[in-house]
Amino acid sequence: MLQTPEVDYGNHRSAFPALQNKRYFNYGGQGPLPWGSLGAIAKAYTQLQEIGPFSSAANGWGQTIAQQLRIQMAGEFSVHPDTITLTENVSVGCNIALWGLPWQAGDHILLTDCEHPGIVAVIQELQRRFDLRVSTVALLPLLNSGDPVQAILKGLQNNTRLVVLSHVLWNTGHVLPLREIVQGCQKAESGRYPVRLLVDAAQSVGSQALNLQDLGVDFYAFTGHKWWCGPEGVGGLYVRPGVRDELQPTFAAWRGIVEDESGTPTGWKDNGQRYEVATSAYPLYAGLLESLRVHQAWGSASQRYERLRSLGQSLWQQLQTIPGITCLQDLPPTTGIVSFQVADRDPQDLVQYLEAQQILVRKIRNPACVRACTHYLTTEEEVAQLVAAVQSFVGIPG
Amino acid sequence: MLQTPEVDYGNHRSAFPALQNKRYFNYGGQGPLPWGSLGAIAKAYTQLQEIGPFSSAANGWGQTIAQQLRIQMAGEFSVHPDTITLTENVSVGCNIALWGLPWQAGDHILLTDCEHPGIVAVIQELQRRFDLRVSTVALLPLLNSGDPVQAILKGLQNNTRLVVLSHVLWNTGHVLPLREIVQGCQKAESGRYPVRLLVDAAQSVGSQALNLQDLGVDFYAFTGHKWWCGPEGVGGLYVRPGVRDELQPTFAAWRGIVEDESGTPTGWKDNGQRYEVATSAYPLYAGLLESLRVHQAWGSASQRYERLRSLGQSLWQQLQTIPGITCLQDLPPTTGIVSFQVADRDPQDLVQYLEAQQILVRKIRNPACVRACTHYLTTEEEVAQLVAAVQSFVGIPG
Repeated sequence: MLQTPEVDYGNHRSAFPALQNKRYFNYGGQGPLPWGSLGAIAKAYTQLQEIGPFSSAANGWGQTIAQQLRIQMAGEFSVHPDTITLTENVSVGCNIALWGLPWQAGDHILLTDCEHPGIVAVIQELQRRFDLRVSTVALLPLLNSGDPVQAILKGLQNNTRLVVLSHVLWNTGHVLPLREIVQGCQKAESGRYPVRLLVDAAQSVGSQALNLQDLGVDFYAFTGHKWWCGPEGVGGLYVRPGVRDELQPTFAAWRGIVEDESGTPTGWKDNGQRYEVATSAYPLYAGLLESLRVHQAWGSASQRYERLRSLGQSLWQQLQTIPGITCLQDLPPTTGIVSFQVADRDPQDLVQYLEAQQILVRKIRNPACVRACTHYLTTEEEVAQLVAAVQSFVGIPG
Repeated sequence: MLQTPEVDYGNHRSAFPALQNKRYFNYGGQGPLPWGSLGAIAKAYTQLQEIGPFSSAANGWGQTIAQQLRIQMAGEFSVHPDTITLTENVSVGCNIALWGLPWQAGDHILLTDCEHPGIVAVIQELQRRFDLRVSTVALLPLLNSGDPVQAILKGLQNNTRLVVLSHVLWNTGHVLPLREIVQGCQKAESGRYPVRLLVDAAQSVGSQALNLQDLGVDFYAFTGHKWWCGPEGVGGLYVRPGVRDELQPTFAAWRGIVEDESGTPTGWKDNGQRYEVATSAYPLYAGLLESLRVHQAWGSASQRYERLRSLGQSLWQQLQTIPGITCLQDLPPTTGIVSFQVADRDPQDLVQYLEAQQILVRKIRNPACVRACTHYLTTEEEVAQLVAAVQSFVGIPG
């Protein structure tokens, strides 16, 4: 793709209705949907009613759009489309990896103290069902001045089958050095099992340049509705080809199976579709494809992620200067997540104060903080308005 | 609701764009979406961009619309909304029930030979994982002249934990006498376990009057996108309150858990939401709600199902008169599914022949047949056109 030296930035931003009436910093919760995606979704619904909704043509359209989306996702990660499973969201992708391994009583799962409560809950359920051992690495005290990689590798046990962690921590915004962790886990294969790595990529996909083949991760679960700005309800899972045979489908149905002529299931599909279940909202696939096109039209991945990071750093630097505000990262962020605390105040108070001014951030419970996210769509003016409002909240006159 | 003696039928039908350019008989695959639902979906997306997409207001809207949908679904079944889990489709509902029971090696699952291949495949995987015993009742030879209930009850074993069957068989259209089966299973509790019943309700919800509390079924998995004419990607699962504690969540995440103030999961929600996972396409919930309203505006459930059945019987009777055509039901159908075979021809040939004339039916592989579905939206004229086209296919001049 040719680089665009002069980007008509205001015009691009006008493609996102949600950005017209507020200052938006909740990309880590959900990204704004471009008008074009709304149009693509509506067009897909209308077209399906025209040719179906259940017909050879409509069913063929569904298969085609799903494969186009797998190809597009795979392209973002520099991997083969056969490695991609379409899911409803990040959590379903994590569940596929968590439930599909051949667990034996006593097997060990290692996770970090920065994982999403929903993922923690399902690991607790796995532990109960299969009599597993689970331990949690305390990363929080190490993120600014310690060595998270060493802490994780030290947490491995002889019978560790799976490590579960986030690429970008959803609470603090720290980026874990995934390549080093993968290499460390591979070297630890002197244990009972090869150590597999499940990555919660909720906050990294669409905010980081990614080459999953180079990284060597086993399972990488992501969503389209956050940093990619697609419709809610569409995500995916990357499964490294070398571990596909180790990971059985759990929740399963017609999308994942091969049938003979009499309709008898004879096995699983020989690609990531084996983990897909049944009917999804196919029109939303057209919406996510359009969101990805909109981003690409603005600029290359490196341009987008560079701008996102630069805006995150700008926000972090300005917040640093406000008395009573403590950023959770000691160093400038390397992504768009800027989490901070307000001395002696419940973060929810600030969230509500800001929301009343149409400035959208969110509270995180652990560590208790306010999370603000910058995207390449963010403007310096938005950042300045957020900073001014935080100043005003803590009692500094504007 | 007042009964409407004079229904403006043509006008109601015009609310469904898919019905304007074809003769549609694939309700069992996917129902046509009303314009109003398309509008409700588009409006929800636009509104979420206006107030969010991630904000207190937008998140509150999502919770509200989800609960409205659970209430509406529960109303259709005469059960409490707490018994309803929102899912992506029928298969996910079946998977929740299949994977959530406390399986022990040697436990027995009984299913029928008329279940969907996707469900058969997941039961095979359960069998492999937990060393279960699985057996299949041969219903096909009994449907017209035997006693399916006795066959199912005879298939129960001392260690049967679960019976899996469809309320309306997706291939032949026969309706299984669910109440008798439930009562038989309850009496069989002299075995090791109470026998639980999972019902694949893909073809019964929206085509049958249902009172699930009266029926006494344990798990009833359904979808909104077939006979209810909602958008694809939204379904549900009913779990009888008395078996909720027996059924653990498997695929799980933030939608099903309770957290304390520090974000630590402390348990599952005390209702059907415990089996819901994470972010779904909430705007589609608004679409399904609107589809249900459209049906209710046409007439009461009994009016709709009576018309649907009457049209199915009309189709069945007319097909009976065509040489070389054999309907799979010996008696007039009690639902809208009319499956039939054409002597010496692959059903797919007829499907393609009809589709070329914009008459939409589908092939079923087992037993190999053509399936045509009537809805209350079907017209006698459509039925006549389908019959005439089938006559033409078998060589009878029109």
